[in-house]
Amino acid sequence: MGERADVVVVGAGLSGLCAARKLRAQGASVIVVEARDRVGGRTRTEQIGQGTFDLGGQWIGPGQKRLHALADELGIETFPTYTKGKKVLEVEGKISTYKRSIPSMSVPNLIQMQGALSYLKRVRKKISPTGPMTAEGAEALDGETLETWRSRFVKSSKISAAMDAAIRAIFGAEARDLSALYFLMYLNAGGGLLSLAEARGGAQQDRFVPGAQSISSALAKELGDALALGLPVRRLTQSGDGVDAVTDAQTIGGRFAIVTAPPMLAGRIEYEPPVSVGRDQVTQRFAMGAAVKVLVTYERAFWREAGFSGEVVSSDGPLSVVYDNTSHDGRQPALVGLVVGSQARQWSAQPLSDRQHRVAGALKRYFGEEAGSFQEYRELDWGAEPWSRGGPVGGGNGMDRLHGRRDSIG
Amino acid sequence: MGERADVVVVGAGLSGLCAARKLRAQGASVIVVEARDRVGGRTRTEQIGQGTFDLGGQWIGPGQKRLHALADELGIETFPTYTKGKKVLEVEGKISTYKRSIPSMSVPNLIQMQGALSYLKRVRKKISPTGPMTAEGAEALDGETLETWRSRFVKSSKISAAMDAAIRAIFGAEARDLSALYFLMYLNAGGGLLSLAEARGGAQQDRFVPGAQSISSALAKELGDALALGLPVRRLTQSGDGVDAVTDAQTIGGRFAIVTAPPMLAGRIEYEPPVSVGRDQVTQRFAMGAAVKVLVTYERAFWREAGFSGEVVSSDGPLSVVYDNTSHDGRQPALVGLVVGSQARQWSAQPLSDRQHRVAGALKRYFGEEAGSFQEYRELDWGAEPWSRGGPVGGGNGMDRLHGRRDSIG
Repeated sequence: MGERADVVVVGAGLSGLCAARKLRAQGASVIVVEARDRVGGRTRTEQIGQGTFDLGGQWIGPGQKRLHALADELGIETFPTYTKGKKVLEVEGKISTYKRSIPSMSVPNLIQMQGALSYLKRVRKKISPTGPMTAEGAEALDGETLETWRSRFVKSSKISAAMDAAIRAIFGAEARDLSALYFLMYLNAGGGLLSLAEARGGAQQDRFVPGAQSISSALAKELGDALALGLPVRRLTQSGDGVDAVTDAQTIGGRFAIVTAPPMLAGRIEYEPPVSVGRDQVTQRFAMGAAVKVLVTYERAFWREAGFSGEVVSSDGPLSVVYDNTSHDGRQPALVGLVVGSQARQWSAQPLSDRQHRVAGALKRYFGEEAGSFQEYRELDWGAEPWSRGGPVGGGNGMDRLHGRRDSIG
Repeated sequence: MGERADVVVVGAGLSGLCAARKLRAQGASVIVVEARDRVGGRTRTEQIGQGTFDLGGQWIGPGQKRLHALADELGIETFPTYTKGKKVLEVEGKISTYKRSIPSMSVPNLIQMQGALSYLKRVRKKISPTGPMTAEGAEALDGETLETWRSRFVKSSKISAAMDAAIRAIFGAEARDLSALYFLMYLNAGGGLLSLAEARGGAQQDRFVPGAQSISSALAKELGDALALGLPVRRLTQSGDGVDAVTDAQTIGGRFAIVTAPPMLAGRIEYEPPVSVGRDQVTQRFAMGAAVKVLVTYERAFWREAGFSGEVVSSDGPLSVVYDNTSHDGRQPALVGLVVGSQARQWSAQPLSDRQHRVAGALKRYFGEEAGSFQEYRELDWGAEPWSRGGPVGGGNGMDRLHGRRDSIG
């Protein structure tokens, strides 16, 4: 009761733990308060079979320099995602394989795909991740969905379907759920659609040897007893003296507070005095995507033997993307897939046996009969995690998220 | 402590109180638990000057037969909104007056306006309010914003601007915030755009003599001590025995519970066991509109004397619509206006004097200098009400609200 520090940080995910670390480096005292009984937020590492695996965020791309630097400092090593061999593309019931970035397609489709990608690149480069509303035409782009915007330059249903699979995997949402502006801003921040969707040279390029949650665990260790787990902050009360973070069990005081929960969860905290109407409206419009991570382990990496990298992009689902997920030392072969977007919203409502059956069916389509014989089947529905309510990211689902943000600055 | 009934109803707005009434009529025992220290939800009646006025919902239209019947049963009388005389339309800095439904416009604009309205009517009639996703083309309509959908048949910026003012007043949102399907479904439920926006023959046709909150007050009186005020339900715990509604002060038990809070607020309650992912995702995508009600009282109804009905539709704001709001007995002349949509999101962030100044400026443009001399200026920002978080309605702001609803049925 009555613990106090210079700053109370709400949330012990990567943002909260990094904020705490930086503040402490500047000499401030900090207490981090976390709702879960663990640190790491949307990262979660577990021992499964003979390997260490992530049931949450797990990859790091070449553009994520700050996370690379942090991992280096903490002595956490990375290793490359396996990408040798053929990739699989499944669109509208048809499976094809390819080797480079661009799938094998009919020549007209290939030309349209290349055209679409280069148009995307040209437009996204104009949308600053730090000030998207200042771009020319930003209002119009934010006033329409990615679905209608795209329909003006992608006419082939095959190409839209393939793009949809990547969009689902990146946002946990459908093209109809995203404002075109939000999509382009995110693309620009992440180096483009291919870069966000790809393993080699892209956002899925590397993995952490001890799992992604190890970063948060190492940061938590530095914090020592300045970290309180299992304490959802219900109310933040600000007065002349500072801020009180009220939990069911105790109240933690600070001169300042930093809330690192995603906007939608931050909106479920009570504020006294209340936050501005503009801010509250943003939290109402910053929905989390829907994402279920599915991990299957095998005795042998039979797909590698058959010349597959393990990479799949599918418009048909239930897995929109699949990657090789074999453990670092090679001892535990595994594949990982994502059920994302509207399919994820109803995934857990189906019986486990049906879910397993559908995943097995999909993997068999891509890699043959052997893919149906898992050692273990594990999944985590991030929408069912009370302190995440979805994933991989939030926002962009309400058209006026950015308007809301702009308004709330006033 | 430990109060129990057959059914716990969360929320003492019109929905909750009516649910309780129907259950009791069937012989069930009910306890209604309300977060506010008053009943009535988004209705709120106050004595201002010499009149009884509503700072929340106040009108009843000819289509609202169930509410009419309820008011009759409770002995609550209605009276017509004043509509005699000229109406004002302000679009892109230009003010014009007109007498019927359709504003005075250039002939080409008039033709386009009539064409747009009849097209709207034709399409909306296909969208069933109880099953919007079953209509032909529903997926596509739900995949685009009202803004882009409308741009295909309304080319005049003047007509879009006038429509925008009505849309803001109805939804508290912008055309870019609404899925075209949601908009059409709502229009169909409400009898069309003009019907929703108009006073005579429309949704603003009549008012309640003792104010709109009197309905809830009468229902509350019937309930007697089966109503608990000032008790926000924080958690609903369901077990074999029934449901416990946990508040800070006490726990109220029932065999069943009915949550009547709007989805976004219902999402801020903790559920044990948790609601389905589909349901939680809907609550994340069902944002409340933004709405501020502004009431000004005068010594004389000078606008009536000058031949104005008091009705204004303005694309320029800050008031998107204005209506005569003189008290039932004529003793307290008044106008009422709505700040809605993106302007409402930042309204309260401005100093009160600026807000008053802007309202006065707008009313003077419409009705002359005298409109600047209020007796009283009152406003209520519904976005700042912690147990409403906006208004007049919620939903439609996230594209996939309807998809979410459909998913959650599975």
